[in-house]
Amino acid sequence: MDRGRCGQINKAGGRSQMDPGSGSRHAGLAAVPVAAVLPAGGSGERLGGATPKQFCALQGRPLVSYAVRAMERINWISDIIVVVSPENIETMKSIVEKYGHKRVTIVKGGITRHRSIFNGLKVFAENEFSNQLLQKPEVVIIHDAVRPFVEEDILSKVVMAAKEHGAAGAIRPLVSTVIASAPDGFLDHSLERARYRASEMPQAFLFDVIYQAYQQCTDYDLDYGTECLHLALKYCKTNAKLVEGTADLWKVTYKWDLYAAESIIKDSLSQQVCVITDVKEPVAKVGFLIHESLRSQTEVQAISMSLSKNDSHLQNNFSGECYSFVCINDKKYDIGETRQLVDMLEKSNIPLLCPVVVISVHLDISENVSFSIGMEELSKIKKFARDVKKKNILVYGLLIQDRDHLLLQETVNSAVALIMALIKDRNPEMIGQLLVA
Amino acid sequence: MDRGRCGQINKAGGRSQMDPGSGSRHAGLAAVPVAAVLPAGGSGERLGGATPKQFCALQGRPLVSYAVRAMERINWISDIIVVVSPENIETMKSIVEKYGHKRVTIVKGGITRHRSIFNGLKVFAENEFSNQLLQKPEVVIIHDAVRPFVEEDILSKVVMAAKEHGAAGAIRPLVSTVIASAPDGFLDHSLERARYRASEMPQAFLFDVIYQAYQQCTDYDLDYGTECLHLALKYCKTNAKLVEGTADLWKVTYKWDLYAAESIIKDSLSQQVCVITDVKEPVAKVGFLIHESLRSQTEVQAISMSLSKNDSHLQNNFSGECYSFVCINDKKYDIGETRQLVDMLEKSNIPLLCPVVVISVHLDISENVSFSIGMEELSKIKKFARDVKKKNILVYGLLIQDRDHLLLQETVNSAVALIMALIKDRNPEMIGQLLVA
Repeated sequence: MDRGRCGQINKAGGRSQMDPGSGSRHAGLAAVPVAAVLPAGGSGERLGGATPKQFCALQGRPLVSYAVRAMERINWISDIIVVVSPENIETMKSIVEKYGHKRVTIVKGGITRHRSIFNGLKVFAENEFSNQLLQKPEVVIIHDAVRPFVEEDILSKVVMAAKEHGAAGAIRPLVSTVIASAPDGFLDHSLERARYRASEMPQAFLFDVIYQAYQQCTDYDLDYGTECLHLALKYCKTNAKLVEGTADLWKVTYKWDLYAAESIIKDSLSQQVCVITDVKEPVAKVGFLIHESLRSQTEVQAISMSLSKNDSHLQNNFSGECYSFVCINDKKYDIGETRQLVDMLEKSNIPLLCPVVVISVHLDISENVSFSIGMEELSKIKKFARDVKKKNILVYGLLIQDRDHLLLQETVNSAVALIMALIKDRNPEMIGQLLVA
Repeated sequence: MDRGRCGQINKAGGRSQMDPGSGSRHAGLAAVPVAAVLPAGGSGERLGGATPKQFCALQGRPLVSYAVRAMERINWISDIIVVVSPENIETMKSIVEKYGHKRVTIVKGGITRHRSIFNGLKVFAENEFSNQLLQKPEVVIIHDAVRPFVEEDILSKVVMAAKEHGAAGAIRPLVSTVIASAPDGFLDHSLERARYRASEMPQAFLFDVIYQAYQQCTDYDLDYGTECLHLALKYCKTNAKLVEGTADLWKVTYKWDLYAAESIIKDSLSQQVCVITDVKEPVAKVGFLIHESLRSQTEVQAISMSLSKNDSHLQNNFSGECYSFVCINDKKYDIGETRQLVDMLEKSNIPLLCPVVVISVHLDISENVSFSIGMEELSKIKKFARDVKKKNILVYGLLIQDRDHLLLQETVNSAVALIMALIKDRNPEMIGQLLVA
């Protein structure tokens, strides 16, 4: 047993200027000292892969980083304790550094889930490493590293309920009927589905309740138990308040859960598109038509300006939540405007957490029917795209022909279909290709 | 109540020559008359969409069609009863017709799950519509329309167990702890996770056991119950044998389950690629290099031949399980070979159930550095792709330059990365584009 020994602690810093955090709606919570413990020590056996699922990459970024970000963006959570197995401490340190996570402390986990969570809590209570002892929170959130989509709303609900009742946890209706099997492998009885719930995460506890429960519980609990609410009830006589959670709290367990999580992330990244056009014709006209057509499919932020003249203005226009850009270039095959946009993105922190899509639109307004695309131009776009891919920016080319004005709207619709497909797919293999609308 | 009335019955026929069905490994089952009932009457509230999830399209095809196909391909299942709500009978009829499903009978469901299943069973037992009474099976499988990935192995296991013990059902370990809540919304107690299991589908019963159970059960059971194993136990004293199922039995419940299911389908469609090349140089050399490079990523079937001369040979080579083709054209921008392949695919039933990807590869072997792509050629490929998309065939163009022989391997690697991306994505918006490796 290793209950008396505090886990290895690593305070990791960093800064991210992205999605600057909500918290405003829950200002009352700012007065309650709250911390979060994220057990991330599982081996991911059910996933059937070598990499534990919390370290599997979605859009190039490990799952655990999404869960950390979900906590970090909430300004009333003061400390985020990530508990990982000893062999993954270095991996976790590099994740915190790479993605600029803030307020994170990495703690060495135990051999079971409960032992890992207990190690995470000790950071606040045992002064064996007194110079690193963190300030004890009034309420502690416990959340899984493999539930990346937790929203502030459910976090604040469980925290408020825990403050009032000592313990609280998110629940969901059961998807399948639960049955008890007899030792011989036959049905013993089935539970009435409506009377039971699935216990999910997040859960929250008065720190003293859950810490006391862990201090008192048996080795059997620590080795075979999984449910924190049970420990609070058994050792502190605290009946947790149950809070109905949303469906997206689900735990990434199997391989297809990773597929699903990646699709959800891609969906959210394509919710907002920024269209950058010049005020000059013919760019302005095409830009306007693209904007109108895109608007029926997604939220569009249109910026009409000459990039070179208004860098700071454009920079201010980045809300920090936009990962998809359409940049309409002034000259055929010249990628001047796209280069400037990419420069700006590189300097910002936007491509840090998720890949940014930039669609470089080129207009062909020549009357010449025998128009053709030269290999040199194609190579130029491809080389540029390969270079900036290293910065997590995915550039695709798109040619819009405006030779027959009667057909322009049709061409724009076809261009917008391609734009949405590129934005939704975010396929790194397709970068640098020039598509034709 | 509508227990005494037999649901509306529609026998629907059809023929599919695809994945001709397994069954060989389970030849013993051919002697047991087995039928399957698929309740598909749910409203899909949890999905949050207007379309019930069993009718949501994955790769253009409704989920229920995948589940029907999973049963239909097993030759020892004699009848497949699909129970749908009255308003979806016509939809279901058109699905059976469009996808050529065989041995399917559509039955009108009741207002609850149990009433729907009971309606499905009546088709074998009540001769109110005597001209349509189906032969009573010894064993009946009950399976959800929203679990599309059921394998023959688990079906045969539950059928054999039901034949021996009267009832059997697939189970899975619980993903979350199950708790009982008190009426005041607080935790009452939590169940020890290891002692319980999630009851999944498929389940199987001696027909007489489950039919008798439904005849005897109360209105309360029919209205509020969900578990067939429970009815068999309660009314026929039959303890079901529990059979450990595989993870892919999971039930499509939420929106992201659809994302996950679509990803699984796309994965399986890209498991096998057929490369069609000419025996003449330089097509043969590039074909060989593509084949070698693809082989490290997927299963590849290489067919070296001139398409025009060996139609029947090629036709025989289609295993009927291949949905991804790479066709290397002899002449630059000529799509002659691709046209012939597409013709052949159109005549087969291959594009019926899932979209087929055809990548039309073009070689540029000119020494001319200032090479360019003409708009006319691009338009030709695009028009052809749009035409055959209606037949569920997705054509993409891919240009491979072989001007500097030293760089050919690198270009082929880049081509193969694009091929795999196109095959895995199967994006209908990208058809007709000419990508450059």
